[in-house]
Amino acid sequence: MLLSQLPTPSLVLDGTKFSKNLKTMSSLLEGTGVALRPHYKSNKCSAIAHRQIESGAKGMTCAKLSEAEDLITSGITDVLIANQIVDSSKIRRMAELAGMCRLTVCADSADNLRELSKAAVYAGTTLHVLIEYEIGMGRCGVTDPDVFVALAELAASLPGIRFDGIQAYAGHASHIIDGEERLACAEKSLGILNGLRKKLAEKNIPVETISGGSTGTSLIVSKLRGVYTELQAGSYIFMDSTYEKLGLPFENSLFVVSTVVSQRPGLTVLDVGAKGLGADQDLPFCLTPEGRKIRTNGVELNEEHLKLFGQTGLSVGDRVLVVPGHCCTTVNLYDFIYVFEGSDVVDRLAITARGKSV
Amino acid sequence: MLLSQLPTPSLVLDGTKFSKNLKTMSSLLEGTGVALRPHYKSNKCSAIAHRQIESGAKGMTCAKLSEAEDLITSGITDVLIANQIVDSSKIRRMAELAGMCRLTVCADSADNLRELSKAAVYAGTTLHVLIEYEIGMGRCGVTDPDVFVALAELAASLPGIRFDGIQAYAGHASHIIDGEERLACAEKSLGILNGLRKKLAEKNIPVETISGGSTGTSLIVSKLRGVYTELQAGSYIFMDSTYEKLGLPFENSLFVVSTVVSQRPGLTVLDVGAKGLGADQDLPFCLTPEGRKIRTNGVELNEEHLKLFGQTGLSVGDRVLVVPGHCCTTVNLYDFIYVFEGSDVVDRLAITARGKSV
Repeated sequence: MLLSQLPTPSLVLDGTKFSKNLKTMSSLLEGTGVALRPHYKSNKCSAIAHRQIESGAKGMTCAKLSEAEDLITSGITDVLIANQIVDSSKIRRMAELAGMCRLTVCADSADNLRELSKAAVYAGTTLHVLIEYEIGMGRCGVTDPDVFVALAELAASLPGIRFDGIQAYAGHASHIIDGEERLACAEKSLGILNGLRKKLAEKNIPVETISGGSTGTSLIVSKLRGVYTELQAGSYIFMDSTYEKLGLPFENSLFVVSTVVSQRPGLTVLDVGAKGLGADQDLPFCLTPEGRKIRTNGVELNEEHLKLFGQTGLSVGDRVLVVPGHCCTTVNLYDFIYVFEGSDVVDRLAITARGKSV
Repeated sequence: MLLSQLPTPSLVLDGTKFSKNLKTMSSLLEGTGVALRPHYKSNKCSAIAHRQIESGAKGMTCAKLSEAEDLITSGITDVLIANQIVDSSKIRRMAELAGMCRLTVCADSADNLRELSKAAVYAGTTLHVLIEYEIGMGRCGVTDPDVFVALAELAASLPGIRFDGIQAYAGHASHIIDGEERLACAEKSLGILNGLRKKLAEKNIPVETISGGSTGTSLIVSKLRGVYTELQAGSYIFMDSTYEKLGLPFENSLFVVSTVVSQRPGLTVLDVGAKGLGADQDLPFCLTPEGRKIRTNGVELNEEHLKLFGQTGLSVGDRVLVVPGHCCTTVNLYDFIYVFEGSDVVDRLAITARGKSV
């Protein structure tokens, strides 16, 4: 089957570039002491998670309990849920799953730690715990190092759970386009994190794991020898139009194949919109099937259409490869990723955790 | 099962308000000569489409061939694809489907009309056609009335297809908050449309159908006696935070139930983000389970979280009803809509066209 024979819009992956991105990340982390724990929220495809593990990843990160279950039941043996799970029925299920693999969850409150402990004791399992520390993103996590110490001591004292270390995610630095500014922002977060590390050392609280980082900060984290023990990058395998601006060593491998459905001077309309392209970050851009960037005077994303302004040289029926604005929210809109090499479709991977937001 | 027992995030529908919205639209159009042809892109749920037909809708509108197939195979007998279908294999499938129901498609080029004709002749079916006219939205459609006349005459002359009339969608007017401004914008589009109608009348080209309009312009279209014959509103059954600002007679009935997972002074974090709430329009707002609006100093939508700023009075574990920014792109993220009445879950409807973007 040819790439040109897929119905549009379809989500497609350049198999060669994907493999190259896997290797680039392995090389980047080699000898740094930072292990890779790729984020599943970016691909939601258990076959890709297995490729990442084969390529040297230590385990997987995910955002949701249902994603963790999808990974575990596909045979992944080491999973981190990089979020707080507070609902009782979810905690009971999580404690069960902890009997099937090495499962770690984040927490930022004493009540939550106590409930995690009770559920794990009842299930007869061990839940690993990272306490989340807020290092500048302004979202979940503890902001006071003394509170962190108290929670770490509580976690260490409770049965059924095991305090492993720190979740510290500087997501606010990930998309800063200027490399110097991004570094400065990451260093500021690192300063906050190092303050906590010092305090924990003073209290003789052992920290085995410090997990965080993203594709956007992967170059920075890989140079922080002795700080982060795990990198949670997700998008590096695919990239997108937002990350493309950052000058990272990864290549765009994920596209949505789309067809021109209407055309007049100055306007080209494609058959994919916000239902086929994640709309929560930058706007997409388009390539010809041969990979040449299509020049426009701007684009507009509607619900069912992508409008390209200017003289694109495209005609009705032509196909383009759209680079999505955000790979993670785009993948979540499709049931399958078609893998292509050259002009051939060579595989079809199920997005097994598509829509798993519970 | 109680609403409070659903895992979060879940997509839920207030059955009472949904029924009320159906009735409000029926009353609005009664005696106006405008038939309702609800847009399936907003609900993608064949059970809801059947409720709309039972409530008096003439047929359904949809955006995609795969949505049309979903409707037809669920027993809906009159379907309009309000877009251009230009791919040959899709056109062949569409011509087949035209043998299973009354199927109408939009076109805006002679080449496309000729291909539609050939496919319908080969399949031994009749495809109904509306020529799309561009009335100010700046997307698909013919902009020159003489070109429209030529296409209408071509469509009328070709075997296998039947020229029914005009697709004229003023989507740019739909979300204008100020009622007077919205009316002025819609009237400007109407002026363009009336210019075309005059020209078609001069040429003695019969126009049976003029289809268009939206929830945002439903009040305006219903007053245009003798112009539009069909209203393509979709969101009226659900509403969202974008439409809520327009002062329309429909009520918010669609929510995402979400849980507070982290909380500190000035910040409340919910367990749903852009993967569970369409991110292509306005930001969401939140209600308590009892329906009281939760005051915030603003909200921020992240990929996996919704951040509420200010003193919300919420605690970790509390549940809220999130009114999505855009109902249509939100529904497309879920496999099911849970219908509730009071505190009980009374039904679970499959979103049969979820992800059908081909």
